[in-house]
Amino acid sequence: MSRLAEAAASLVEAGQRMDARNWVPGSAGNLSARIDEETIAITRSGVHKGRLKAADIIEVALDGTARQQGQKPSAETLLHCQLYRLFPQIGSVLHGHSVAATVLSMAGEIQFSGYEIIKAFGFQTHDVHVTLPVFENDQDIARLARLTEPVLLDETPVGYVIRGHGVYGWGSSVEHAFWRLEALEFLLECELQRKRIP
Amino acid sequence: MSRLAEAAASLVEAGQRMDARNWVPGSAGNLSARIDEETIAITRSGVHKGRLKAADIIEVALDGTARQQGQKPSAETLLHCQLYRLFPQIGSVLHGHSVAATVLSMAGEIQFSGYEIIKAFGFQTHDVHVTLPVFENDQDIARLARLTEPVLLDETPVGYVIRGHGVYGWGSSVEHAFWRLEALEFLLECELQRKRIP
Amino acid sequence: MSRLAEAAASLVEAGQRMDARNWVPGSAGNLSARIDEETIAITRSGVHKGRLKAADIIEVALDGTARQQGQKPSAETLLHCQLYRLFPQIGSVLHGHSVAATVLSMAGEIQFSGYEIIKAFGFQTHDVHVTLPVFENDQDIARLARLTEPVLLDETPVGYVIRGHGVYGWGSSVEHAFWRLEALEFLLECELQRKRIP
Amino acid sequence: MSRLAEAAASLVEAGQRMDARNWVPGSAGNLSARIDEETIAITRSGVHKGRLKAADIIEVALDGTARQQGQKPSAETLLHCQLYRLFPQIGSVLHGHSVAATVLSMAGEIQFSGYEIIKAFGFQTHDVHVTLPVFENDQDIARLARLTEPVLLDETPVGYVIRGHGVYGWGSSVEHAFWRLEALEFLLECELQRKRIP
Repeated sequence: MSRLAEAAASLVEAGQRMDARNWVPGSAGNLSARIDEETIAITRSGVHKGRLKAADIIEVALDGTARQQGQKPSAETLLHCQLYRLFPQIGSVLHGHSVAATVLSMAGEIQFSGYEIIKAFGFQTHDVHVTLPVFENDQDIARLARLTEPVLLDETPVGYVIRGHGVYGWGSSVEHAFWRLEALEFLLECELQRKRIP
Repeated sequence: MSRLAEAAASLVEAGQRMDARNWVPGSAGNLSARIDEETIAITRSGVHKGRLKAADIIEVALDGTARQQGQKPSAETLLHCQLYRLFPQIGSVLHGHSVAATVLSMAGEIQFSGYEIIKAFGFQTHDVHVTLPVFENDQDIARLARLTEPVLLDETPVGYVIRGHGVYGWGSSVEHAFWRLEALEFLLECELQRKRIP
Repeated sequence: MSRLAEAAASLVEAGQRMDARNWVPGSAGNLSARIDEETIAITRSGVHKGRLKAADIIEVALDGTARQQGQKPSAETLLHCQLYRLFPQIGSVLHGHSVAATVLSMAGEIQFSGYEIIKAFGFQTHDVHVTLPVFENDQDIARLARLTEPVLLDETPVGYVIRGHGVYGWGSSVEHAFWRLEALEFLLECELQRKRIP
Repeated sequence: MSRLAEAAASLVEAGQRMDARNWVPGSAGNLSARIDEETIAITRSGVHKGRLKAADIIEVALDGTARQQGQKPSAETLLHCQLYRLFPQIGSVLHGHSVAATVLSMAGEIQFSGYEIIKAFGFQTHDVHVTLPVFENDQDIARLARLTEPVLLDETPVGYVIRGHGVYGWGSSVEHAFWRLEALEFLLECELQRKRIP
């Protein structure tokens, strides 16, 4: 199996798992995996992420242009490319729109303290205080990427959220990225529930 | 495959997806697709929308009468017909009863601002303010349709809600209508959660 | 297929659907169907209702005693028998423990007004005000049945709730009982959500 | 089938059921079953509990060391071993991270009163008042075990929670442990919902 076919199979499955959790309503979200040093595989624009076919995964150079003419990568491809460019250890990036991420991002800062599951992000203890960066949404993705870049470099966060939009998570492989996204969504859901306890 | 058989297959599947999201409790909801300029296919009355069979999808003229004698279309068929009549680009209408739509419709106006997912409805930016019309419920469907008609024509809304009843969504195809309904339900769920954050 | 085998197949499936909705945690809940004028089929004690096998459905006389020696019917069999005895049109009774029913039953009276889905219970309009009876829980099921009997006869309610325990729903067939239970749980979930909107 | 193969098959399935309920996000949770007086089977470290393979279940002595060299048992193996050591009737221990357990453990004491489902833990009536012990989280599992030991011996609780971490449940078999965990999570979800009703 080619590296693209492998990546496509993993992303199709990740999309189904994200859909089962209700994180990719409509045609929301985009999923990618690194192919080699210069190329990634990413979902094309305008497809439901819970019903991907291998043909919906296309190859894109790290500058965001499709390898094959006429193919239209996802609008937010540049945010994926940025992560692969900045962090060689990243093998997959998953972006979804969960209710918890959307609602919390509209309600102020997001911070996690005292959660065991934070260890999913490489911490050795639950006894840490972690901030999840929240960026203002922007339809100009290049401009948005200039906002995220210094934060990614300075803080190497566990993920990030775009306000009213959704969450970006990543990992060394598609499976690892899904685990970290699942841990992140768990933390967001906990924080959303805690806000409601008087 | 005939156009009816195709429509039935799509609607059976859409019903299963709506049921998996818990949007069609009991025999609630009704689903339809355009067959041609004068005919639509719609779920018949009194069946569970998560367990539709092809035979539960019947043909109805745009005035709401069943093509085949003795067949009983859904009570709200006229609201479907109205949408097909007013908007030639509509290819499918999906109506479900979600908890979020029902509860929010009983709690006042419904408005969406600053959500990325609003782009599912053709907006070019998240930076818009959208009102979801809420109509008083009425067992006289013809009278209810006279209420919705001017609003549909004046505002071409992203969908609408009947108070204490449920949501109407639509799209160019069954798949597209499901995407938009999923986006609408996502927005409703977000608004319901936001109302609860003190 | 014998009437018992038919009833068992329907109840096994209803149990799976209730489990998928998380209404039968642990070995909670019990499900039954009428076999003939003197006999019902009911789940035996101590099995998970999401993983029933046909052999877990046993025959019981309307006085609550197992037809076959050594078989132990569910503890709450008498409440099922009561419903079959009082209402000849009842063909199936489903009892589950949902979070919404349990929590609301501990928070006061339960009433439904202005819901379209109330029509699932035979009402011709949403414009009705319906009370769901809540009974104090009691380990003495015969005593509890003496409490429910006059209310069942006087009010023929849409179902009832035992405080801190769960909901009883019924219908003319297992499928119909499941529809009504689904509608009832939808109403309970709506009321629970509405209580939380400030 | 060997005792290990049997235990592995049951634990693989229990992991899938826990994942379907969203109790094991990322690689969270660990599951075990007793093999004989001196040995248990437990999930190895760093696997997703919803996608276990039989090879992910390894044998561990009651002192927490892997039977086979090079195998790495779950970090919290000692808490499992403690339960098997103290209570000969325990045949399986399941540990998950649910949102309800995590959030409630961060919000104070956890107590259950008047719930029918408490009978899943051997009580003869709903009319009891039960405290669920909450322990401070600690990365030093041996030290944490010294904290849980007297409480386990004195109170034989229905389970316990580690703050910001998750819940431990157990039973005579994997199936029984899952039933009790399901009942416990139901109680936690009810308490979380009740905290939110003004």
